[in-house]
Amino acid sequence: MTDTDALNIPRSSFPRIVIIGGGFAGIALAKKLSKKEVQVVLLDKNNYHTFQPLLYQVSTGGLEPDSIAYPIRKILQDYPNFFFRMAKVQQVLHDEKVLVTNIGKLSYNYLVVAAGSETNFFGNFEIEKNAMAMKSIPQSLNLRSMILENFEQALLTDDLHERDALMNFVIVGGGPTGVELAGALAEIKKGILPKDYPDLDTRRAQINLIQSGDRILKEMSEEASIKAEDFLERLGVQIWKNTRVTGYDGKTVLTKTDLVFEAATLVWAAGVKGASIKGLDMEEVVVPGNRIKVNEFNQLIGYPEIFAIGDIACMHTDELPSGHPMMAQPAIQQGRHLGENLLNLIENKPMQPFIYEDKGSMATIGRNKAVADLKNYRFQGVFAWFVWMFVHLFFLIGFRNRMVVFVNWVYNYIRFDREARLIIRPYRRDYSLFRDRKKT
Amino acid sequence: MTDTDALNIPRSSFPRIVIIGGGFAGIALAKKLSKKEVQVVLLDKNNYHTFQPLLYQVSTGGLEPDSIAYPIRKILQDYPNFFFRMAKVQQVLHDEKVLVTNIGKLSYNYLVVAAGSETNFFGNFEIEKNAMAMKSIPQSLNLRSMILENFEQALLTDDLHERDALMNFVIVGGGPTGVELAGALAEIKKGILPKDYPDLDTRRAQINLIQSGDRILKEMSEEASIKAEDFLERLGVQIWKNTRVTGYDGKTVLTKTDLVFEAATLVWAAGVKGASIKGLDMEEVVVPGNRIKVNEFNQLIGYPEIFAIGDIACMHTDELPSGHPMMAQPAIQQGRHLGENLLNLIENKPMQPFIYEDKGSMATIGRNKAVADLKNYRFQGVFAWFVWMFVHLFFLIGFRNRMVVFVNWVYNYIRFDREARLIIRPYRRDYSLFRDRKKT
Repeated sequence: MTDTDALNIPRSSFPRIVIIGGGFAGIALAKKLSKKEVQVVLLDKNNYHTFQPLLYQVSTGGLEPDSIAYPIRKILQDYPNFFFRMAKVQQVLHDEKVLVTNIGKLSYNYLVVAAGSETNFFGNFEIEKNAMAMKSIPQSLNLRSMILENFEQALLTDDLHERDALMNFVIVGGGPTGVELAGALAEIKKGILPKDYPDLDTRRAQINLIQSGDRILKEMSEEASIKAEDFLERLGVQIWKNTRVTGYDGKTVLTKTDLVFEAATLVWAAGVKGASIKGLDMEEVVVPGNRIKVNEFNQLIGYPEIFAIGDIACMHTDELPSGHPMMAQPAIQQGRHLGENLLNLIENKPMQPFIYEDKGSMATIGRNKAVADLKNYRFQGVFAWFVWMFVHLFFLIGFRNRMVVFVNWVYNYIRFDREARLIIRPYRRDYSLFRDRKKT
Repeated sequence: MTDTDALNIPRSSFPRIVIIGGGFAGIALAKKLSKKEVQVVLLDKNNYHTFQPLLYQVSTGGLEPDSIAYPIRKILQDYPNFFFRMAKVQQVLHDEKVLVTNIGKLSYNYLVVAAGSETNFFGNFEIEKNAMAMKSIPQSLNLRSMILENFEQALLTDDLHERDALMNFVIVGGGPTGVELAGALAEIKKGILPKDYPDLDTRRAQINLIQSGDRILKEMSEEASIKAEDFLERLGVQIWKNTRVTGYDGKTVLTKTDLVFEAATLVWAAGVKGASIKGLDMEEVVVPGNRIKVNEFNQLIGYPEIFAIGDIACMHTDELPSGHPMMAQPAIQQGRHLGENLLNLIENKPMQPFIYEDKGSMATIGRNKAVADLKNYRFQGVFAWFVWMFVHLFFLIGFRNRMVVFVNWVYNYIRFDREARLIIRPYRRDYSLFRDRKKT
């Protein structure tokens, strides 16, 4: 090994910990390792951390993208022995303890995989090609552009079927993402569309939420599910339960039954899977959902110097036989806990098993409408909505981001508005499927 | 003519005024025409108004793009008989009083061209291909991405020449845009780069401002020019006067003399020209700078139902033989004035000639550093800087935008920071010109 790696990171006498991913887990771990006798290299394909729980507000014009992103270099600024590189990981060569990336190779003493999750289309390439996903800021901005482009396009057609299809939104997946997006779209339909498009009968716009199971928010209590359905229905969202979407060509949504939708927009929020990493795809490591199996120390079985945390890690426990929920809380807790454990490991002290403290979960449906299942009590409505906002502001990184989000929320609340309805980069969707046959 | 035009705009008994462009001029005119007995159709290729004077702050991570953009539909929401269409104008058929756009044809009774200006590369296609422009939000975001990508790239090379070129910024044009961008980059170099890139010798980063004439800010007083140069030099900007850039292949900047720069980034702020509109490109109408010649009523000579306002309009007067400056103030004033005149024209009253009230001009160089030439007095420094901020906040459209910009400015001022240093969409510049020969 030369003095430096290909990524121009100097060799240090401290052990090198390489973290793949600057999400909730990776950042929590990095913070724990600050000012310790380790060299930390954090890799991410973006130069920013994304606050994923608020992506749906970017898609629906309620927040600007920059207010839920935070420069990773800024987080690491005050930490000595920290290095960030914007890189895509291509392969782990675990025998050599080397990582191959698009910008070169990097050796490690310890590797922590915190690469998160990606949208799971369950192998349906037609849906993957035509549906919109909402796991990143560019994807959310594409959806924002597309929603607005649809309405601009709807204005131009005389064909009522086409116009309806352009104003028809199908959201697949009744988890928090699907529910929150459906609620936000319903509020836009009610409060903004009639004013923005007085020359369009926007009452005909439809928001359909499709859930494969028999209740939405199935990870939450039945009380929360029932209340969320009630909230959504009051906002005018059509909920279709026990329905499975099987195909989408960009125009027609097919389901397992006779139910068919004609819709220009299908948002796929029906599932996530662990991000694939070449070299860590051994049969004994990967579990269903493409997650990486780890022991109680978040350590890969058989690879003692490799760890996985966050969405990508699957730690089987008696209470959670299919691993922890793929959400921010377990990621943050695992990141922090692994920080302690790595320092223990380096100092030859015993590692401590990870114990998840479930703080509960929440989802917001709209203005004054949220559901919360906390540890000891459940509640819904205005108070839950305020708690939801407070919690999200608290977990946002950066004072400026908090201020900007807060200003937006206060403004949106008082004015019943969402002003970031901007098509900054057109999504350039193929409208030929909906071409107005009367005009050429 | 059928009941509706191809753009699905109903016929009205009121005369139809079609406005091309939702910039300062178009919006000022639209506001004047609200609640009058006219039908107004506003066309823009974007669905938002751009506050161009602050684009350089988007490029340099000081402001989020959404805070200087405002949805045009929101501006027109409360006006009856107003229609907005997102469209690109392709041609004016003035004999038929019809406009051809990418979404169909539209007839008009009066046409107002407020299409603004575009970057003028003076016919140098090589520069046009390789330089960055900063006239729109997507362009500004491309520049933001590119600046940040350059530093990420600089970290990875061992070749000192290449590294220097990646950290070398050449800004061509010493007008307000060039001066403000140079100042902002210099502040980033001083305050942010050393913290963000501790493993890079960012002191070697260079900011070069190139001006063809013998002083910068040549439209302002000599006092302002001298002070601005002093401010820039104190911030570490290299100013090259009497220098003309003749070529740029993406790596090497050539000038008329022996002076050569190796730079990965060249920002072209050396000139603007009127946007071209087919059908209004007759020899007797277009003047140098590609602007449209208008009389004292902003009316095209020989085409009494066509008007031009803002950057694209060139009204020769004794005081201003080459027309009004291509800036916000004349655009806003012409828009307002034409509003009155159009109503006069429709009511068969005489039109009033446009008289420009020059309120002066300002430019900001950095923190506490601005220059102002107002009508009756000139001043520079902290007070000018506060006035500059106040004026820009005042002219920004929308309360939310003002609040968000204000929060950002206060934060940036207190923390010496600019947190929107995000590569949301990589610019994917071709780095092969700078390929590190030691690694493949």
